[in-house]
Amino acid sequence: MAVVPFVEYDQASPEVREVYDDIMATRKVTWVNNFWKVLANDPTTLRRVWAAAKEVMQPGELDALTKELVYVAVSVTNNCEYCILSHTASARGKGMTKAMFNELMAVVALANETNRLSNGYRIDVDDRFQEPLSR
Amino acid sequence: MAVVPFVEYDQASPEVREVYDDIMATRKVTWVNNFWKVLANDPTTLRRVWAAAKEVMQPGELDALTKELVYVAVSVTNNCEYCILSHTASARGKGMTKAMFNELMAVVALANETNRLSNGYRIDVDDRFQEPLSR
Amino acid sequence: MAVVPFVEYDQASPEVREVYDDIMATRKVTWVNNFWKVLANDPTTLRRVWAAAKEVMQPGELDALTKELVYVAVSVTNNCEYCILSHTASARGKGMTKAMFNELMAVVALANETNRLSNGYRIDVDDRFQEPLSR
Amino acid sequence: MAVVPFVEYDQASPEVREVYDDIMATRKVTWVNNFWKVLANDPTTLRRVWAAAKEVMQPGELDALTKELVYVAVSVTNNCEYCILSHTASARGKGMTKAMFNELMAVVALANETNRLSNGYRIDVDDRFQEPLSR
Amino acid sequence: MAVVPFVEYDQASPEVREVYDDIMATRKVTWVNNFWKVLANDPTTLRRVWAAAKEVMQPGELDALTKELVYVAVSVTNNCEYCILSHTASARGKGMTKAMFNELMAVVALANETNRLSNGYRIDVDDRFQEPLSR
Amino acid sequence: MAVVPFVEYDQASPEVREVYDDIMATRKVTWVNNFWKVLANDPTTLRRVWAAAKEVMQPGELDALTKELVYVAVSVTNNCEYCILSHTASARGKGMTKAMFNELMAVVALANETNRLSNGYRIDVDDRFQEPLSR
Repeated sequence: MAVVPFVEYDQASPEVREVYDDIMATRKVTWVNNFWKVLANDPTTLRRVWAAAKEVMQPGELDALTKELVYVAVSVTNNCEYCILSHTASARGKGMTKAMFNELMAVVALANETNRLSNGYRIDVDDRFQEPLSR
Repeated sequence: MAVVPFVEYDQASPEVREVYDDIMATRKVTWVNNFWKVLANDPTTLRRVWAAAKEVMQPGELDALTKELVYVAVSVTNNCEYCILSHTASARGKGMTKAMFNELMAVVALANETNRLSNGYRIDVDDRFQEPLSR
Repeated sequence: MAVVPFVEYDQASPEVREVYDDIMATRKVTWVNNFWKVLANDPTTLRRVWAAAKEVMQPGELDALTKELVYVAVSVTNNCEYCILSHTASARGKGMTKAMFNELMAVVALANETNRLSNGYRIDVDDRFQEPLSR
Repeated sequence: MAVVPFVEYDQASPEVREVYDDIMATRKVTWVNNFWKVLANDPTTLRRVWAAAKEVMQPGELDALTKELVYVAVSVTNNCEYCILSHTASARGKGMTKAMFNELMAVVALANETNRLSNGYRIDVDDRFQEPLSR
Repeated sequence: MAVVPFVEYDQASPEVREVYDDIMATRKVTWVNNFWKVLANDPTTLRRVWAAAKEVMQPGELDALTKELVYVAVSVTNNCEYCILSHTASARGKGMTKAMFNELMAVVALANETNRLSNGYRIDVDDRFQEPLSR
Repeated sequence: MAVVPFVEYDQASPEVREVYDDIMATRKVTWVNNFWKVLANDPTTLRRVWAAAKEVMQPGELDALTKELVYVAVSVTNNCEYCILSHTASARGKGMTKAMFNELMAVVALANETNRLSNGYRIDVDDRFQEPLSR
């Protein structure tokens, strides 16, 4: 059970309802998931985090599915159950198959493995990897 | 300075050289980066981790660039300097631009932020996110 | 279910009871929470960790509530459910309101976000931030 | 060396300069630290993260120093060198002494220790810690 | 409930059954635990991870029990419930007593504590600790 | 450079010198490493952490080398450079060879990999792994 109560649409202030309405309109659904119902206890955070999520997760240089896969990868690394399951659902809605999820897990697992080999052995970064991204 | 010495090609055993040769052939380059030169202190691990990396990172259900982006995302979350810089270089070699890197960082940062909001508030997972991936 | 059984007061050795008595006397309560009942399987650790907690969490240069907020912030970052809920309860007992908890979560989330931006971009530390704390 | 070049004020676009000006005005200083000079490679992220930091870190239910201490605590837990040093400097600017920093470190260390005891022993949360924050 | 269905022996492909048979033969048991039943959704990963686990966890320079203790220590640090409980069971099967588990937890907790003191204070590594392992 | 200055023996208070003397006597060496010279800025923490390290790291149910290996494993997982290098040196002093270090890294890497597979797939814990440790 969450640390604070859910704020359901019926009980919500106009400020919160405005965000809920935008979430549903943006996603073309008629429901709001628990993450936002909890953040609504703090309308300032609700508004800010929703605006950030909307801006960051929209297709841009990276497409929307790639962004969802990255989101799941981070959430698995941090072991955030809520985020793994909610963004796995989002990724599936954007075209992720089970076979893609399996490959994603394999990459996440490999990276977590080699991260520790690199850190444990204190491997010096090769000079050729130190060039900044110019474009 | 790494915890163990680098194993350069000239000093390497035939078993290690075989892996180095496969790394260079697979990548179509004439050098081996420090990660493998350190792992070569343990030829069993060198062979196993290279075989795993070769298998996991090849294009499959996910393309090679997407896999590199996921790798960087995990490495940033874990703060592995070596892995961030080496896989940023790999991703660039597969087509990642600076603009794509910037978006990647924005997604990684957002996921790390919302992971803690979800975990901190102990948000209950919505029933609709609990359905297994069947295909 | 915990990996080891709880040690209830009735079953406890005199050594364990002495710690339980001090916990209850220090906190002015008549019960001991599960954390200590589990540690009591190892009386040496029970005694050492309780003494450390008592020493570290008492008001000093930082007041007791600030220390509880910091404790919750760390526990959220590490995703320790037990610690989040037990220290949220402690913080509330020392005056934390829901509005304060909401702001705490916002700071924790922001820090987790910017930690990854700093680490991901490998940002050089400004010279002016390198001066040691002299007093 | 950062993965992308710094954007100095002189080279910056009007959009970036506007953020830099607001950073300096808000903080009453005449310089911008490297974090923002790096984010300026992505003006959208620069604007969003600055707006978030400004909103979240201002005094509210928690005072500005407490927020900085929490920020440092999270950054230490995640081992973000840039964030530890920059926010230690901010905290000092808001009144943190060396003695307060020492106590902060002691709490952060204790919490990281007990987080693992709780997670390792899989300690069941006491019923009395499960009550939501109503106000 | 896992994100993908379990693959039971009866439903498994010959490729998967071959791995299951090897797991049971290696361990001298007549059952396969859920970890492998889930990985079996991706036979390539099942085969690779099982081969790696078999190779890495066998007695070598370190005995099998020491390796299980290290495995539990990492899993506690990362808070992986499945891995803590499955490898605690493995460790017990190789001779770990409750008293040994208690000491293991004390070391894991201490290391997590001092890791943050070292990182938080940004302690310079002593020159004498920088000498590589030559043999 | 550390956030606080080192406290050298010559400048140290009697309280700090007493701990330094005990460190040197316990280890049978004539020097104190930087970790303690930094903690000495806070004599209470210096005394408490040294007493804890002395108690926890002594041989008991687990031998001293096994404890050092576990310490290194945790420090690699958390990426604490100071702790990796100082405890690798300690482990070597207690008999760890390069070949043992290599195997240790392989186990740490494998555990970090499978931790994410277990967490990512949300694998249900087998009933047989849920039995508490009774002795």
